[in-house]
Amino acid sequence: MSLKKIASYASFGGEQQRFSHQSQRLNCSMNFAIYLPPIALSNSATNTIEKLPVLYWLSGLTCNDENFIHKAGAQRLAAQLGLIIVCPDTSPRGEGVMDDAQAAYDLGLGAGFYVNASEDPWQANYQMYDYIVHELPALIAENFPVNAGAQAISGHSMGGHGALTIALKNPDKYRSVSAFAPITAPMQCAWGIKALGAYLGEDSRRWQDYDASCLVKISTAKLPLLIDQGSEDQFLESQLKPQLFLEAAKQVNYPVEYNLRQGYDHSYYFIASFIESHLHFHARHLKL
Amino acid sequence: MSLKKIASYASFGGEQQRFSHQSQRLNCSMNFAIYLPPIALSNSATNTIEKLPVLYWLSGLTCNDENFIHKAGAQRLAAQLGLIIVCPDTSPRGEGVMDDAQAAYDLGLGAGFYVNASEDPWQANYQMYDYIVHELPALIAENFPVNAGAQAISGHSMGGHGALTIALKNPDKYRSVSAFAPITAPMQCAWGIKALGAYLGEDSRRWQDYDASCLVKISTAKLPLLIDQGSEDQFLESQLKPQLFLEAAKQVNYPVEYNLRQGYDHSYYFIASFIESHLHFHARHLKL
Repeated sequence: MSLKKIASYASFGGEQQRFSHQSQRLNCSMNFAIYLPPIALSNSATNTIEKLPVLYWLSGLTCNDENFIHKAGAQRLAAQLGLIIVCPDTSPRGEGVMDDAQAAYDLGLGAGFYVNASEDPWQANYQMYDYIVHELPALIAENFPVNAGAQAISGHSMGGHGALTIALKNPDKYRSVSAFAPITAPMQCAWGIKALGAYLGEDSRRWQDYDASCLVKISTAKLPLLIDQGSEDQFLESQLKPQLFLEAAKQVNYPVEYNLRQGYDHSYYFIASFIESHLHFHARHLKL
Repeated sequence: MSLKKIASYASFGGEQQRFSHQSQRLNCSMNFAIYLPPIALSNSATNTIEKLPVLYWLSGLTCNDENFIHKAGAQRLAAQLGLIIVCPDTSPRGEGVMDDAQAAYDLGLGAGFYVNASEDPWQANYQMYDYIVHELPALIAENFPVNAGAQAISGHSMGGHGALTIALKNPDKYRSVSAFAPITAPMQCAWGIKALGAYLGEDSRRWQDYDASCLVKISTAKLPLLIDQGSEDQFLESQLKPQLFLEAAKQVNYPVEYNLRQGYDHSYYFIASFIESHLHFHARHLKL
């Protein structure tokens, strides 16, 4: 699996890089961004091999691999902590990849929902779950000094849904999980019903496998789990519904650190304001 | 002069706001962004009037009032310092405002160069110098709790040129000035020759009034002045030419704190990496 570097920017003594590669699972070319803290560069210069922990960040609807690296302001603390941050795209892309017929923002391109699609025409490319859980981490481990035993995962909105569902299904693969304004019960909101119905078919029993509020009840282990939610988020009541997740977690005594942030909305200003508290949370569990 | 609020986002306990207003000097509607730190909001809630220092940020070619507030990551420290940051647009805009006939990125819209144009067709709207020095600060003082005696100014590239020239011409109005990768000698680079020629006419003697390397030799007072420049900036040799400014400053013993940052380019990753050191610099001189 070969990587092509498409950009590199000095950032807080480290480097914010972007790569493209051919994804086997998604059957298309994909971009991802990776932040390498200063210690990753000095080690590579001295041929020291110290493997660093890695945080995967999953973005929300309409985003690609760049929104987080432009706007979240995570590099400052990641540089200090010695944390690698990997930001994948939010769906397969490019020539031949199906989009929604109406080019809706909430289905198709930019809206992969981090599932493995079973339905046509989506299944040919929309295998984002496998890409995030298996293919991309293998590629990262092959090419960067990461400690594959020290992974964490986070995300925003649709990406918060991705982070929660992926961590709940793979508690052995991640040390901690966090989310900003996640879609917590996709079977009970319009975004989720539309996407899961299209990608997984009409039988909604199969959707449970990608619904955090269902998965939390059957998860085999209890990961450290943090959620931040803005009180003025325009999608709070209609799409995100954190109360459903909190109730489900409570039923099984799954501990959730939940912060309702007064006055904050759904934007990257909200993420930037609290990203450092999430990085500190993950750093504690990654033993940084 | 009435303001219309077009956006407000909670950010680090304060608010990142955007406004539009009708500019008399520019003869068009203009947007600006303003960051209000938490103390500005708590004061307004308790009717306390504590006037806060203010930093003006001037952006570069092709930018508007939003690039800095999205990408620089300045709000975190501004919130802690209690510093208001105002980000104007980079040129007049909107219906009836002349653009370059070829819509070039370096002349017309997004490229006001912070001068008062004397030539047709530009002079009807392109009076950015007066807007930044006089009209906008008056509007800000009327509508926000700023201490008009505690102003600082900074900027990037074309905006660094703006910050240096405006501060050198008005040392009584600003306590300190800083710049990231500024155009320091516009009379000696292609960007500057094109813009100053168009806005001010062919007689290049009139351009000296907007050339930092000329102005530093005749400035009546010595302001604290900080410049950061990336060593890998693609415009370093062709357009920015900090050496010309440093030599001119040296001739008159004008102290310049100059940091050449190894490996950094012209992007916002560079600005984000060092914005906090600039805010600390201004905070010292604003006595924060």
